[in-house]
Amino acid sequence: MESEFIAWLRERLPAHPRLGIGVGDDAALVRMDGSGVLVSVDVLTEGVDFRLSEVDPRRVGRKALAVNLSDMAAMAAQPRAIVVGVVLPRTHGLELAQQLAAGMIPLAEQFDLAFAGGDTNTWDGGPVISVTILGEPAGRGPLRRSGARPGDIILVTGSFGGSILGHQFDFVPRVREALALNAGYELHAAIDVSDGLALDLSRLARESQCGALVRIDQVPIADAACELARRDGRSPLQHALADGEDFELILAVPPDEAQRLLATQPLDVPLTAIGEFVAEPGLWQVDAAGQRTKLPASGYEH
Amino acid sequence: MESEFIAWLRERLPAHPRLGIGVGDDAALVRMDGSGVLVSVDVLTEGVDFRLSEVDPRRVGRKALAVNLSDMAAMAAQPRAIVVGVVLPRTHGLELAQQLAAGMIPLAEQFDLAFAGGDTNTWDGGPVISVTILGEPAGRGPLRRSGARPGDIILVTGSFGGSILGHQFDFVPRVREALALNAGYELHAAIDVSDGLALDLSRLARESQCGALVRIDQVPIADAACELARRDGRSPLQHALADGEDFELILAVPPDEAQRLLATQPLDVPLTAIGEFVAEPGLWQVDAAGQRTKLPASGYEH
Repeated sequence: MESEFIAWLRERLPAHPRLGIGVGDDAALVRMDGSGVLVSVDVLTEGVDFRLSEVDPRRVGRKALAVNLSDMAAMAAQPRAIVVGVVLPRTHGLELAQQLAAGMIPLAEQFDLAFAGGDTNTWDGGPVISVTILGEPAGRGPLRRSGARPGDIILVTGSFGGSILGHQFDFVPRVREALALNAGYELHAAIDVSDGLALDLSRLARESQCGALVRIDQVPIADAACELARRDGRSPLQHALADGEDFELILAVPPDEAQRLLATQPLDVPLTAIGEFVAEPGLWQVDAAGQRTKLPASGYEH
Repeated sequence: MESEFIAWLRERLPAHPRLGIGVGDDAALVRMDGSGVLVSVDVLTEGVDFRLSEVDPRRVGRKALAVNLSDMAAMAAQPRAIVVGVVLPRTHGLELAQQLAAGMIPLAEQFDLAFAGGDTNTWDGGPVISVTILGEPAGRGPLRRSGARPGDIILVTGSFGGSILGHQFDFVPRVREALALNAGYELHAAIDVSDGLALDLSRLARESQCGALVRIDQVPIADAACELARRDGRSPLQHALADGEDFELILAVPPDEAQRLLATQPLDVPLTAIGEFVAEPGLWQVDAAGQRTKLPASGYEH
């Protein structure tokens, strides 16, 4: 099946100028400009990240790539290439592999990624997709999680919550936004929101050895969070803070630069200030009345 | 479980000088010397590549890395870093992850690899391990599968067959051998034997648009192939040609250079000439009596 799939795939993938050696050898050679490579892997599994009985495999394939692109966005890196490992069920394995690939290819083309190889396996279990992405430092260099300082403003792209209604599969990773911001502005740190706004913010703060104070009435809430709240009785804000899979960016930005960004709004997606980093560790919330309390770092724990 | 595992792992992994950014951010930064990266992925699955009821998980972890190192050897590349994705069963997942890592770490240290991140998932299915390896061109550049020419000698390292008796887990990937040969000698092509000597030789020949003629009495047969032959009644040669997972190298070498290599034997492992590449496509065998027939490209087809 593997050779058949590779033959099918080779027809659909144009020769990429960065592939010195492409699919079909023991390894691919990806030409890079610099001397450093950013690398990240994400694994998606049936029953945890998707259910093929409920979702088109093409959307699953697209998502497997999109979550990796989001990691590159979180580093403000220029994505260059991917390798893909898939484990497939014995029945209809080739068909599934083709559908997964068909979902990945348009997104790979949109971001000019080289497909630098893969491995397919067939077994008695459910499908697993592992995507490894390679990128290069861009702009002012990689944006770490650890660079936030007390006083920095917490800026976020887009809005949060309710991704389960569709956004979790259809989001556009914020690669272009991150590259534009990192090229033109002084940013201190970034993370992408995969597991929940509150949880991922707490991670960024912890890596930066500081705390974060969220102005709870400033959190941009997605329409989907309101829709979901109507169905399940939890508040839209709860959804926005804890749902995860928003794949928006949280940025730590010095106050002057944050003002400039908020005033000029240079992106197609809104930038919103939702609070600031503080010296005291932990996650805090302030409501519209100025009441300050602990904010639970809720979200999806693996 | 993931955060617990990462904490456990961070304690065991020394800071690697090539990691500009290590485990714990959205991506790792691997410092490279040149401008190209060789990349390859291999996925190992329960029931196909191993059975945890029969083999120590540390040997499985070691193998997951070793097969990727073998791909780098086949390109004569200098391995630099790995990222690892694992999917674990819900019960004893952390323990299993630790055992897999404990099997990987000594081999990673032996080859001075940077551990550049990973992803862990838990589900109701069996374990899956996906390793992606990054390397750099070395010596006279990457060795392709496609460079063999009619008249080139087929050289192999080591011996073949019976790997199921233990070699499939305990082999040392031929990275050092490949780097030494590629630095000092003119080689035209290479492949590592994962699926069977005959099958992988046929792949190399096909990619080089030529054929291969095997002097069947010259094939170096492993002791394990003889041992297995005693048990199952197939011949040692059949095992040597088709068993696979030998992870030895097949090299295409110009005749003069092959003579030099055979005379000086510069490696710790024997180099053996087992035939030559020919213009006529396909796989051929000649026996000691000079009888020439088709050789089936037998081995493990995925």
